[in-house]
Amino acid sequence: MKLATLRIGGGTRAAILRDQAFYALDWPDVGGVLVSGVALLDLKPGPYVCSIADADYAPLVLRPPKIFCVGINYISHLQELAMEQPSHPTLFSKFHTSLAGANDDIALFGMSSAIDWEAELVAVIGKWTSKADRDQAATAIAGFCLGNDVSARDLQTRTPQWLAGKTLDASTPLGPWLVSTDEIGVRPDLELSCSVNGTIMQHGRTGDLLFDAADLVVDISAFCTLEPGDIIFTGTPGGIGAARQPKQFLKSGDILMTEIDGLGRCVNRLVA
Amino acid sequence: MKLATLRIGGGTRAAILRDQAFYALDWPDVGGVLVSGVALLDLKPGPYVCSIADADYAPLVLRPPKIFCVGINYISHLQELAMEQPSHPTLFSKFHTSLAGANDDIALFGMSSAIDWEAELVAVIGKWTSKADRDQAATAIAGFCLGNDVSARDLQTRTPQWLAGKTLDASTPLGPWLVSTDEIGVRPDLELSCSVNGTIMQHGRTGDLLFDAADLVVDISAFCTLEPGDIIFTGTPGGIGAARQPKQFLKSGDILMTEIDGLGRCVNRLVA
Repeated sequence: MKLATLRIGGGTRAAILRDQAFYALDWPDVGGVLVSGVALLDLKPGPYVCSIADADYAPLVLRPPKIFCVGINYISHLQELAMEQPSHPTLFSKFHTSLAGANDDIALFGMSSAIDWEAELVAVIGKWTSKADRDQAATAIAGFCLGNDVSARDLQTRTPQWLAGKTLDASTPLGPWLVSTDEIGVRPDLELSCSVNGTIMQHGRTGDLLFDAADLVVDISAFCTLEPGDIIFTGTPGGIGAARQPKQFLKSGDILMTEIDGLGRCVNRLVA
Repeated sequence: MKLATLRIGGGTRAAILRDQAFYALDWPDVGGVLVSGVALLDLKPGPYVCSIADADYAPLVLRPPKIFCVGINYISHLQELAMEQPSHPTLFSKFHTSLAGANDDIALFGMSSAIDWEAELVAVIGKWTSKADRDQAATAIAGFCLGNDVSARDLQTRTPQWLAGKTLDASTPLGPWLVSTDEIGVRPDLELSCSVNGTIMQHGRTGDLLFDAADLVVDISAFCTLEPGDIIFTGTPGGIGAARQPKQFLKSGDILMTEIDGLGRCVNRLVA
């Protein structure tokens, strides 16, 4: 099934997608659905909210307790950065204030002059999980959505730690909807792409992840308890702007499109 | 004034310290007090909870929306790591699940064999703050407490990003109480120390921070909106175990004491 967090009437509402339309659920966002512990298959669609064409998507989870990101998780991205294959995932974070809706404008030019794209498969955690083995890790994942770990390369690299360049306000599209694992499995092998003004910049398959979502849950939960609504950005394939010759960054007016086959798309305009 | 989050009756309660005793406030933790927006000077002590001798401290803020840490912020720590003075603070993060109470046992030996100490002054944010100048930054700080950014050096350094070694479950004492800025100011110059089994390992003055708390709020809020209950670990002085010859790490049974003059102390036992 597909769940979204929609903006309606000055607030937000979790909703379930059925036949190209959204029907309300009892929580303000998908994070609330997950925290409630209700089995996703037991969710009952409530009143009609809107057609899919009229949806105004908020960030899928409004305030994830934790947002983990993975730095280097596709061979193609390792190669463009001339890095060795890692023994462990390179983990870093961003905060809830960095999230944006699937179709929101992104306004970062006062903060950075090197705004880059990173299209990613995103895992959404559905239950409290500590020291998981691979089977437990698989059941911890509620589903997947897509995201773009939009990065300010100047802030990211001004110190040894990347956080500053990764958690700019309202920089990171997350959505449009959660596709649950009963529909998509825990290791989806889907075509992923990122384009700028219609030109494909990144292209890969989510089956090529070095550490898949269950691997990441095993790795993280060994030292850090995961919980419902936690988010894991699983990493981006090759094709980022900073690794191009010459480097290429986003500019005002650009249309950034992030797409994963079966997971929908995020379309975000960069604005001054 | 001094505010704490106490464990009582299976839950927690924010409390205010008066004459060596705690009196209940209307919120489950100090984070709740800050989110409520009530002026700290207007807080009215409620029913008696316990004497200071009987207090069981929970983490000062149970679920900070964000926890920022600063990597290299004292000359003495720069020198032991042979690093240059940075132009910007090196920011990284940890998550709420990593917090511990001021006197809690710390049990990390299943996760790491290189557990190290980092005594720190910690700033607690009191209001929503974006793009602050230095005066606005000063008013954004509700007060200070102390913390120990206990770090698993093996996890910290196995990839280029430190997060894994910095956010181990229940690793990071935060407390015992918040001292508000009306009492302590926004740039306290206090003696800070860290000892293991009574031997002083770190010693410094919080007035020696390269970037003080207001500087950090200016820097962070330029790209990331801060909010009530956010936490900033301001960095640690020289004397960490990993920089000693030979290296020295914590072992089961060790007593880790973190102390800042006027802010109290955290005393934590390392357990298997």
